Amino acid sequence: MHKPEVGELKVRRSDRLIDMTRYLLERPHTLVPLTFFAERYDSAKSSISEDLTILKRTFQARGTGLLETIPGAAGGTRFLPYILKEEANQVVETLINQMSSNTRYLPGGYVYMSDLLGNPATLRQIGRIFATQYLNQDVDAVMTIATKGVPIAQSVADFLNVPFVIVRHDTEITEGSTVNVNYVSGSSTRIEKMSLSKRSLKPDSNVLIVDDYMRGGGTIGGMMSMVDEFDANLIGVGVVAESTAPGGRAVKDYTSLMRVDAENDTVISKPGNYLEKIFN
Amino acid sequence: MHKPEVGELKVRRSDRLIDMTRYLLERPHTLVPLTFFAERYDSAKSSISEDLTILKRTFQARGTGLLETIPGAAGGTRFLPYILKEEANQVVETLINQMSSNTRYLPGGYVYMSDLLGNPATLRQIGRIFATQYLNQDVDAVMTIATKGVPIAQSVADFLNVPFVIVRHDTEITEGSTVNVNYVSGSSTRIEKMSLSKRSLKPDSNVLIVDDYMRGGGTIGGMMSMVDEFDANLIGVGVVAESTAPGGRAVKDYTSLMRVDAENDTVISKPGNYLEKIFN
Repeated sequence: MHKPEVGELKVRRSDRLIDMTRYLLERPHTLVPLTFFAERYDSAKSSISEDLTILKRTFQARGTGLLETIPGAAGGTRFLPYILKEEANQVVETLINQMSSNTRYLPGGYVYMSDLLGNPATLRQIGRIFATQYLNQDVDAVMTIATKGVPIAQSVADFLNVPFVIVRHDTEITEGSTVNVNYVSGSSTRIEKMSLSKRSLKPDSNVLIVDDYMRGGGTIGGMMSMVDEFDANLIGVGVVAESTAPGGRAVKDYTSLMRVDAENDTVISKPGNYLEKIFN
Repeated sequence: MHKPEVGELKVRRSDRLIDMTRYLLERPHTLVPLTFFAERYDSAKSSISEDLTILKRTFQARGTGLLETIPGAAGGTRFLPYILKEEANQVVETLINQMSSNTRYLPGGYVYMSDLLGNPATLRQIGRIFATQYLNQDVDAVMTIATKGVPIAQSVADFLNVPFVIVRHDTEITEGSTVNVNYVSGSSTRIEKMSLSKRSLKPDSNVLIVDDYMRGGGTIGGMMSMVDEFDANLIGVGVVAESTAPGGRAVKDYTSLMRVDAENDTVISKPGNYLEKIFN
């Protein structure tokens, strides 16, 4: 029998740990059977179990996420990414510093934030924060409205490993048959229309709504009606920024990362309600 | 002097390898100094170097990407994700199987593919393929047009770790001042308009254009004009699917993953030109 040397064993374990880390990070919220890893690395299940114990400890120590182990024949391991409160605070603080610049002020009390929502690293952190809130909930789809909500939805969906669906203000030929909803735009009190492809959502889906910015809440309210129209269930609402501008808010329960006050050419930003909503 | 036991040493290295894997995967195309890791893990730079050698070997063996080492005082390590030809072929084959369904046919020879472009795992693979093509090129920004190009742009930008910018058909109040371009829509020969926030791109930026679907190429052509208007440089064009429908194509040089033939209620899909463009 070939007796492996210490160095040879160490290499094997190193190789497994590195590749398992990558494999699990790329497949959050997905159950991976132990036998899959055992075959992938031509290793005993007992070795894989030891690897997973090390991974679990490191992921926890570094605030990467939770590595669940499900015992039994149908069992395996599942990686649930989260962000710790301290890191989330740093992310929001950085966002606030970036947002609190008067050069972002736009006529009408609007705020330019397309650069922040076009930065992959920022989006990844935002996605991790909202995914943490719904870590243990059964989310089937993330819903948003075109255009600027899309990157938020994609990032949250990426960490929850569920599809995202895009509601539109227009009806596009490439969406096929659509369900249309009228809603009152909170800021203008005009009646507007939004549409979503009929194929997008199965009945009884659990839907998380996200968007970049909430003023009066009319658009979010419209998406909540859309969830109803599909006989789906609303799980929650998350926005990156909410406006402090007065006005009846159609949406009562939501999570925001920032509150933004934009008037008289001045933009001031402070933390939203995410601490009490996610980390209490 | 405390002499560490073998088990203790092994744990330290395991911990480092797992966390370094995560850290580097989350920061592609970013130079990380060796001293950063040395301080993060309270370890000697020589140990970090050994770790990086193991990481490099595993990343290569598993087709994860290239781990570059830059020597010297200003040096460090940089992770460049790529996908191997065999894996890319599998990704495209899966896409083709999903696309080749007559239930996707829409009136006018259009194809429903919003479900594919709303699947985070699919988007990640598509992003890896296009990022592989531009692995060694200096890309400053990824450009796309709302709405369905956005997830593609975000995914490619994520792997290249550069910002993405979104051209729009309308002019939105939250974009501030915009640059507007008229273009001939290839499929309808109508004149249409697209706009991009003036703040989006710096002059002389190297821009990669991506989109979900190319028919006549008019929209892509419009974005190429937009790149010119910003005094930026076009690096390349990538589309997930191109139509086989006849018609003068405004864009001569592009990369496509699929060619899609949609007529008479039938959708047939086959590989695009990505093999010759990326893996030759």
